[in-house]
Amino acid sequence: MIQRIRVSSSTGQQLQEITDRINAALRQANVSEGICHVYVPHTTAGIVVNENADPAVCVDMLAWLDKAVPQDDHYRHAEGNSPAHIKATLVGQWATLPVEGGKLVLGTWQGVYLAEFDGPRERTVIVNVVRSDG
Amino acid sequence: MIQRIRVSSSTGQQLQEITDRINAALRQANVSEGICHVYVPHTTAGIVVNENADPAVCVDMLAWLDKAVPQDDHYRHAEGNSPAHIKATLVGQWATLPVEGGKLVLGTWQGVYLAEFDGPRERTVIVNVVRSDG
Amino acid sequence: MIQRIRVSSSTGQQLQEITDRINAALRQANVSEGICHVYVPHTTAGIVVNENADPAVCVDMLAWLDKAVPQDDHYRHAEGNSPAHIKATLVGQWATLPVEGGKLVLGTWQGVYLAEFDGPRERTVIVNVVRSDG
Repeated sequence: MIQRIRVSSSTGQQLQEITDRINAALRQANVSEGICHVYVPHTTAGIVVNENADPAVCVDMLAWLDKAVPQDDHYRHAEGNSPAHIKATLVGQWATLPVEGGKLVLGTWQGVYLAEFDGPRERTVIVNVVRSDG
Repeated sequence: MIQRIRVSSSTGQQLQEITDRINAALRQANVSEGICHVYVPHTTAGIVVNENADPAVCVDMLAWLDKAVPQDDHYRHAEGNSPAHIKATLVGQWATLPVEGGKLVLGTWQGVYLAEFDGPRERTVIVNVVRSDG
Repeated sequence: MIQRIRVSSSTGQQLQEITDRINAALRQANVSEGICHVYVPHTTAGIVVNENADPAVCVDMLAWLDKAVPQDDHYRHAEGNSPAHIKATLVGQWATLPVEGGKLVLGTWQGVYLAEFDGPRERTVIVNVVRSDG
């Protein structure tokens, strides 16, 4: 069962945690064991899995991406958001996560984030689950 | 049903759209809802999902990768294609994409690309589909 | 059937091949055709698929990551391992690999690696398989 989550970003670049919303979608799917697929059908946003204990980890990640992919760098794409496209490809637009006992198997410090690189916008996250429980 | 697509690159570095060929493989697979797995069994090529409207987005992405991973940089790997291996790891060698109504669920501007980093070569793309439709 | 592999790294940054251990887990899973999901529930480690013929490829990859994400760069995260978090996001914390005839479909030169960025530590790798063989 494919489910869609709507997430609104409030600024240009942002990591917004969506772990709880994915677990809520998982409860609907009723799959005990399998793989959860989280996907953004966008080209200037991505999915990141990383530490959700200290928010400074997200700050550092966005700062590194900004430095590595400068806003102004003789890009050809006239729309001006080439850096957002490149960042989306670097972090990736999907995650696959293990499901056990009907829940995401995440590490103690892992959270799942929608990575906004060209906001603010309303984004869609597609959640789907395939079962491995026979 | 695992299917194999052959793609020939014509130059050293190239993003070639394969969205239509993946959708054709999907029609063969006859899965209404699930996850489509696209994979390259190569170490100097990758899979990228990004904008297919303005070709300048692909140009900018390849240019950024070339700058971030310089061709000459005291690499140890004697074959000389270490940058291609690094770029393949940065973009990734696979994609997982949602399937609904027997087709890829892509955003309006999303296309799926074979990323060649050490061409020209003939490459294999492996397409497989798992169902989530019960 | 979700399986867990334990891998101990012996230094701060390291790529350790785990291909054989994943194939051993696959034999337990008894899935002829499908997708194998390899996942680390950690925020400073990742999964890399790349050449396992010349070990210099791994050396070059770790050296590039070290240069691209410097150890000291005014990070906010007080624990001091922000570079490890960023590297984990760049390479990704999971891989999805095709399974055919009960085995991983890898290219001639492909190996699967646990990427340690904040070791030495004992890490867990989660292996799960979903079937596409009907």
